[in-house]
Amino acid sequence: MGLVVQKYGGSSVADAEGIKRVARRIVDTKQAGHEVVVVVSAMGDTTDELIDLAEQVSPYPAGRELDMLLTAGERISMALLAMAIKELGHQAQSFTGSQAGVITDSVHNKARIIDVTPGRIRTALDLGNIAIVAGFQGVSQDTKDITTLGRGGSDTTAVALAAALDAEVCEIYTDVDGVFTADPRVVKKARKIDQIGFDDMLELAAAGSKVLLARCVEYARRYNIPIHVRSSFSGLTGTWVRNAPEGGEMEQAIISGVAHDTSEAKVTVVGVPDKPGEAARIFRAVADAGINIDMVVQNVSAASTGLTDISFTAPKTEGHRAIAALEQVQEGIGFEALRYDDQIGKISLVGAGMRSHPGVTATFFEALSQAGVNIELISTSEIRISVVTRAEDVNAAVQAVHTAFGLDSDTDEAVVYGGTGR
Amino acid sequence: MGLVVQKYGGSSVADAEGIKRVARRIVDTKQAGHEVVVVVSAMGDTTDELIDLAEQVSPYPAGRELDMLLTAGERISMALLAMAIKELGHQAQSFTGSQAGVITDSVHNKARIIDVTPGRIRTALDLGNIAIVAGFQGVSQDTKDITTLGRGGSDTTAVALAAALDAEVCEIYTDVDGVFTADPRVVKKARKIDQIGFDDMLELAAAGSKVLLARCVEYARRYNIPIHVRSSFSGLTGTWVRNAPEGGEMEQAIISGVAHDTSEAKVTVVGVPDKPGEAARIFRAVADAGINIDMVVQNVSAASTGLTDISFTAPKTEGHRAIAALEQVQEGIGFEALRYDDQIGKISLVGAGMRSHPGVTATFFEALSQAGVNIELISTSEIRISVVTRAEDVNAAVQAVHTAFGLDSDTDEAVVYGGTGR
Repeated sequence: MGLVVQKYGGSSVADAEGIKRVARRIVDTKQAGHEVVVVVSAMGDTTDELIDLAEQVSPYPAGRELDMLLTAGERISMALLAMAIKELGHQAQSFTGSQAGVITDSVHNKARIIDVTPGRIRTALDLGNIAIVAGFQGVSQDTKDITTLGRGGSDTTAVALAAALDAEVCEIYTDVDGVFTADPRVVKKARKIDQIGFDDMLELAAAGSKVLLARCVEYARRYNIPIHVRSSFSGLTGTWVRNAPEGGEMEQAIISGVAHDTSEAKVTVVGVPDKPGEAARIFRAVADAGINIDMVVQNVSAASTGLTDISFTAPKTEGHRAIAALEQVQEGIGFEALRYDDQIGKISLVGAGMRSHPGVTATFFEALSQAGVNIELISTSEIRISVVTRAEDVNAAVQAVHTAFGLDSDTDEAVVYGGTGR
Repeated sequence: MGLVVQKYGGSSVADAEGIKRVARRIVDTKQAGHEVVVVVSAMGDTTDELIDLAEQVSPYPAGRELDMLLTAGERISMALLAMAIKELGHQAQSFTGSQAGVITDSVHNKARIIDVTPGRIRTALDLGNIAIVAGFQGVSQDTKDITTLGRGGSDTTAVALAAALDAEVCEIYTDVDGVFTADPRVVKKARKIDQIGFDDMLELAAAGSKVLLARCVEYARRYNIPIHVRSSFSGLTGTWVRNAPEGGEMEQAIISGVAHDTSEAKVTVVGVPDKPGEAARIFRAVADAGINIDMVVQNVSAASTGLTDISFTAPKTEGHRAIAALEQVQEGIGFEALRYDDQIGKISLVGAGMRSHPGVTATFFEALSQAGVNIELISTSEIRISVVTRAEDVNAAVQAVHTAFGLDSDTDEAVVYGGTGR
């Protein structure tokens, strides 16, 4: 009976009833003989409400102070959760990120964990107590200021603590039953995945699956921490994310799932002189503007003109900044025009097994073709194929591909308990 | 131009507008050439709302976790205030009680400050920044746990920081214009006091004046920190609380003011055997129950019976516990009965000058008599006379005494800006 780290998201602790329900689940785990460390997010909409308040006093709040403000959210939920556990007759102590030894760099609002020194957590466990830790927050190594980890930060806190404490498993509780072969809100016959490897999970997350963020999966892969994604509203086994044991006991699926993402926009740089260094100048300009790009596609240039087109996708929220950055270098690079399109969607097929199954790409494109979906961009990795289509075609495309690869369940089993999957 | 510590209460920072107004006032002080340290309470009703939440999950929340919960309140207000100041073009940094070096004992919910080590505040000031510090909270020396200072804690934080930083003045901003000769809600002609010594202010606070709590005044007296109590809603000079300079430049009023208090109840122990040690046994029983008693009165015993009555007052909230504690020892001590009365009020006349003016007591009782107010208990100190009356007589008694000592203003000058004076 080893140490279990459990992480509960904001929708699981949205009100007093939710907190009491989570407390009972934690106590059950403790009574089963485990040491228990719990990572908790802020209650329900607390973080959004605090951001609203900040914007009322300052349109662009200072990063250090925004972190100080937002970390009040987990302080509230973790203290209430510790009280609720004590009410059930068990000892619990809450710890801030700083008290739990979550040491980060100094980049406010999106700090990275650089060390975890959980001495106080270890002491609490040795005393037989349950430790409740604030997710999403840490303290900077250099300035001793409070930091936050950005989107998905609480999941990363949980995995990082699990690694530092040598936990048996990191359980991520959410409002769905696990990771599905496609978004259950789009594909009624999506199936819950029982087991999935880190690589496949990482590609699914990067391709738009919302259940786990890539950052947290990366951390778990690096330290080989098994993650169990499961629902806090049911007692069901969820999805195990872990590497196949030596010897390969874990069955290797050809395809793990279909992910989609409609949060990106497409930028096309038209008429780029086809000579060495031009692409580099384009992407240097975009990178200097701090924009994260996703897919990049360049075709062969037309022989008649010596010009080529380069397309890339980036989050819609950063699209206009990308255009502005490129307009500044248009004259120097000498491309003809810029096109911006935010009515696109991306569909990705992920599976480590596709390495050894050459027919996968053909089946994927046939399915899209039969569904009448036009493909605008294509990008592949060793275990993923992604295409960009019109945004309005995304749902039909996901369903067609899901069916074509035999992923459909016999029943409509997917259950969404509410919330947005975060 | 020295260092100024300013403290703003919850009603001054109740919403975004309040925070912006306070930010402008802080910037004005900075621009006048002062170093500025600001201590801030939680916004408006935040603390009460958090206590409500706690009670929803646990009727008697654990002290450590309640402190963790409540300290989220100042975290929110101080971060927002720092943002609002930056919006006005000045540099500000917020600090938790722990970061500000407020070291306390380990008594959760009513910790006492045992040291202040404001190294980070000093560094922020040296960089030319404005430091915003969370009131009401600290960190325990032994366990490094978060603590809160209990009622009036933010005022105490401000005075303690002012002492540790050798401030020129500690300004306490509230929703009234200063300390008045009586509660302006009871006496329309109450006058604002321009200057008052620490001893008088301490007696007024102990006697029920709500503007400053005794604990904060005691701290200021010990370290000789001048306090300036003033309104955050007006630009007026308020009340200076400080000792007369050597040589006595400060005019010594005979009477500083009239305080009243209707928050206490009276307990009478009837028929106590009049022999040594009986009173001690009674008050030991009450003290062991953790009850703070205020006035104690014992009259001479009736010669015929050898029995006496002992009365004391204590907060109404603790009255029933006092009765329960005494009932447990009734048989051992052998008193006849207990009487409990929560329909009482206390009126106190305070003034260091009364030492040298023997007519004060007579004038006080004459004023009460002429107002038809019956006196039930009397208690005096060197610079205070207090009486207990019926609760319904308190307002008339305060007005009569205020007039009798010539404290009435020529005009109805007292202005209350809203809130409860805290």
